[in-house]
Amino acid sequence: MSEVRTKAALAKRAAVVMNRLTKEQKNAALRTMADALMTEQASILEANKLDLQRGKDGGTSPSLLDRLALTEERLAGMAEGLRQVAELPDPVGDLLEEFERPNGLRVQKVRVPLGVVGMIYEARPNVTVDAAGLCLKTGNTVVLRGGSAAIDSNRRLIAVLQAALAGTAVPPDAIQLIEDGDRASVNEMLKLNGLLDVVIPRGGASLIRTVVEHATVPVIETGAGICHTYADASADATMLSDIAYNAKVQRPSVCNSMETLLLHESFADRHLIEVAQRLQEAGVEIRGCEQTVKRLSLGGSEAARTAQVHAASDEDYATEYNDYIVNIRVVYSLDEALAHIDKYGTKHSECIVTASEDHAHRFLQEVDAAAVYHNASTRFTDGFEFGFGAEIGISTQKLHARGPMGLPALTSTKYRIYGSGQVRG
Amino acid sequence: MSEVRTKAALAKRAAVVMNRLTKEQKNAALRTMADALMTEQASILEANKLDLQRGKDGGTSPSLLDRLALTEERLAGMAEGLRQVAELPDPVGDLLEEFERPNGLRVQKVRVPLGVVGMIYEARPNVTVDAAGLCLKTGNTVVLRGGSAAIDSNRRLIAVLQAALAGTAVPPDAIQLIEDGDRASVNEMLKLNGLLDVVIPRGGASLIRTVVEHATVPVIETGAGICHTYADASADATMLSDIAYNAKVQRPSVCNSMETLLLHESFADRHLIEVAQRLQEAGVEIRGCEQTVKRLSLGGSEAARTAQVHAASDEDYATEYNDYIVNIRVVYSLDEALAHIDKYGTKHSECIVTASEDHAHRFLQEVDAAAVYHNASTRFTDGFEFGFGAEIGISTQKLHARGPMGLPALTSTKYRIYGSGQVRG
Repeated sequence: MSEVRTKAALAKRAAVVMNRLTKEQKNAALRTMADALMTEQASILEANKLDLQRGKDGGTSPSLLDRLALTEERLAGMAEGLRQVAELPDPVGDLLEEFERPNGLRVQKVRVPLGVVGMIYEARPNVTVDAAGLCLKTGNTVVLRGGSAAIDSNRRLIAVLQAALAGTAVPPDAIQLIEDGDRASVNEMLKLNGLLDVVIPRGGASLIRTVVEHATVPVIETGAGICHTYADASADATMLSDIAYNAKVQRPSVCNSMETLLLHESFADRHLIEVAQRLQEAGVEIRGCEQTVKRLSLGGSEAARTAQVHAASDEDYATEYNDYIVNIRVVYSLDEALAHIDKYGTKHSECIVTASEDHAHRFLQEVDAAAVYHNASTRFTDGFEFGFGAEIGISTQKLHARGPMGLPALTSTKYRIYGSGQVRG
Repeated sequence: MSEVRTKAALAKRAAVVMNRLTKEQKNAALRTMADALMTEQASILEANKLDLQRGKDGGTSPSLLDRLALTEERLAGMAEGLRQVAELPDPVGDLLEEFERPNGLRVQKVRVPLGVVGMIYEARPNVTVDAAGLCLKTGNTVVLRGGSAAIDSNRRLIAVLQAALAGTAVPPDAIQLIEDGDRASVNEMLKLNGLLDVVIPRGGASLIRTVVEHATVPVIETGAGICHTYADASADATMLSDIAYNAKVQRPSVCNSMETLLLHESFADRHLIEVAQRLQEAGVEIRGCEQTVKRLSLGGSEAARTAQVHAASDEDYATEYNDYIVNIRVVYSLDEALAHIDKYGTKHSECIVTASEDHAHRFLQEVDAAAVYHNASTRFTDGFEFGFGAEIGISTQKLHARGPMGLPALTSTKYRIYGSGQVRG
């Protein structure tokens, strides 16, 4: 049997044990895992050095090396994360509905674990610990397939966590790491119906696309975000500028950052130049529609006039830059803004800045996205910012979970029916 | 553009309009559709005759012809179904959660339509009307792909419904029928990401398998049911016999009927013969494990002894008969019963008959299925029996919806966030 199938089968067997554990037993295991990360710190950092060296030798970019790197501080953060997850309310066992039928049947709908979760992700070793913690908390077992760039770190982390579990009620087999770095191991996971209950990809657009295209196991799609901010005619200029700046500049690399700024013509007439200039001063490259390019080349400061403003192409509007680049487009109505978002958006997070309650209502009602904002930055689409205390990812699909996913997204439900001999007539 | 893509695009455009309608507008449209089915009765029955004649000429079995046939009574039932759906509470717009964050952001989680639903089903024309009604009620539009055996009926039904909608607030384009009977049109639907938000297959195991294997659009898997009834050592003999009889005989062709009866050895010692005999008298063929075959050939009436009891194979245990056939297997413990169900079950409906609260608790906790029963027939797994007033199908998957699906299963959610200029720090 292949590594993938063998380990998924072990995880499935462990799921039976997980399903019998109390909340306290699971939480105690999470705390033991956190302790082990601290006591085994040296060997984990040692293993991480191997990954970093290999990365350097292979010419990995500094920003990717930074995401790969573990430090004492980052390890302490991961341990603290596990302790915080232990403190969160455990949704498993929650009674969601209860009713009695006229024939006397008593029906309960309760939350249960999903079973075995497959996680496919890229080079950040913190996801390894994070995902393991969230899955165990919700009574699931997990099969982890991280990127090969982090394989030494992941191998050591999993060895430490499994050894820690040996002293707890949670079976060490509840956490499995696929070590085979070949793409074929991902494809095998995607077809493991009957062993994996769900696959969650975490990573770039190409990983997500591969998973969606090839999986026969149910998928929770996460992350792709082409998010827009629309400045309506009545938008407060300072508020718009602050929100647009925050949505673009505060952390451009993440999915809830802004890629395109839509400005109503009358707002653009008054404020385009100052808004654009502020973004340019923060190092943001602007790609504009014809109107934007024209207005920016006519007005504004010397700096704004001389900064290169490229014409935005259709492809630009359809690109998730995750970088210091923004498209700016002038529109002539709310309807035009809605049509643009409908065409280019990825149903993640969308914002309108307006003083019109009526326009805000239409935007929030009609835009088809996981999170729709009136007068606030799209950067708030986040499990911690929503107060969930944890986040498995941000779902951009419409089934099962939409938007930031807290612990309940890692559960399913079951109907328990209590009878006294009822049969159907 | 292909028929499938063209019609899905029309449905997507209509979904924007649907999303703006009030509950009253949608309900009025459903009632108008019901009226139209009655006034256009003659032309619908005429079209149905074409399907029936083609079926007869092609040698279709009488039972399939019966499923295909429309009558005045069946049409009236379909119209009445639409009127009942109009009366049900509409989940769209329901406020599921609302909270305020320390920074003043007000977050609402509301129910929204899924968007465009793709339905792929077999030869029963009532599904055409049923699915259209449930989708419109929940603010969705629908692309229907029925079996080619019912194409004349479906074409006429859709023409009648679309004409009826022309006089309502619901755009006629909200209901689309794919007329191309080629398998390629199904495959095309399964890959229509961006146009279809979900695909729901309704039909036999092979249809469901095709959809799960080839879809890149999210799927709600329905229907496959290998359901078990387990008679624990302490089971009341009359209760067990009634429940097993009901689960097998009352309607063998449906997914929640029983395929395998598991009997604890000590129960089998006392009651196997009478239970088996009652099933045989109802025309049920028994396939037994070694112990079952042995016991039935030694004891019981002349009739029971002479009835052929085949040995059940592994394949038998893994087959959804949907017919007057049952496997009977003797087990020696609750654990053995649980292991059998884990191996052969399809996570649909499972029942334990026992006087032991402890064993009932373990069974309901540990069996991984959409519906788990203590002392009641698995035949109750049904949206109407659960009191939902409607049923789109019975989900056997763990994501999004599990078990009988009422109207909320045809919805998603959206976060609406109200701010006053908040940005992330």
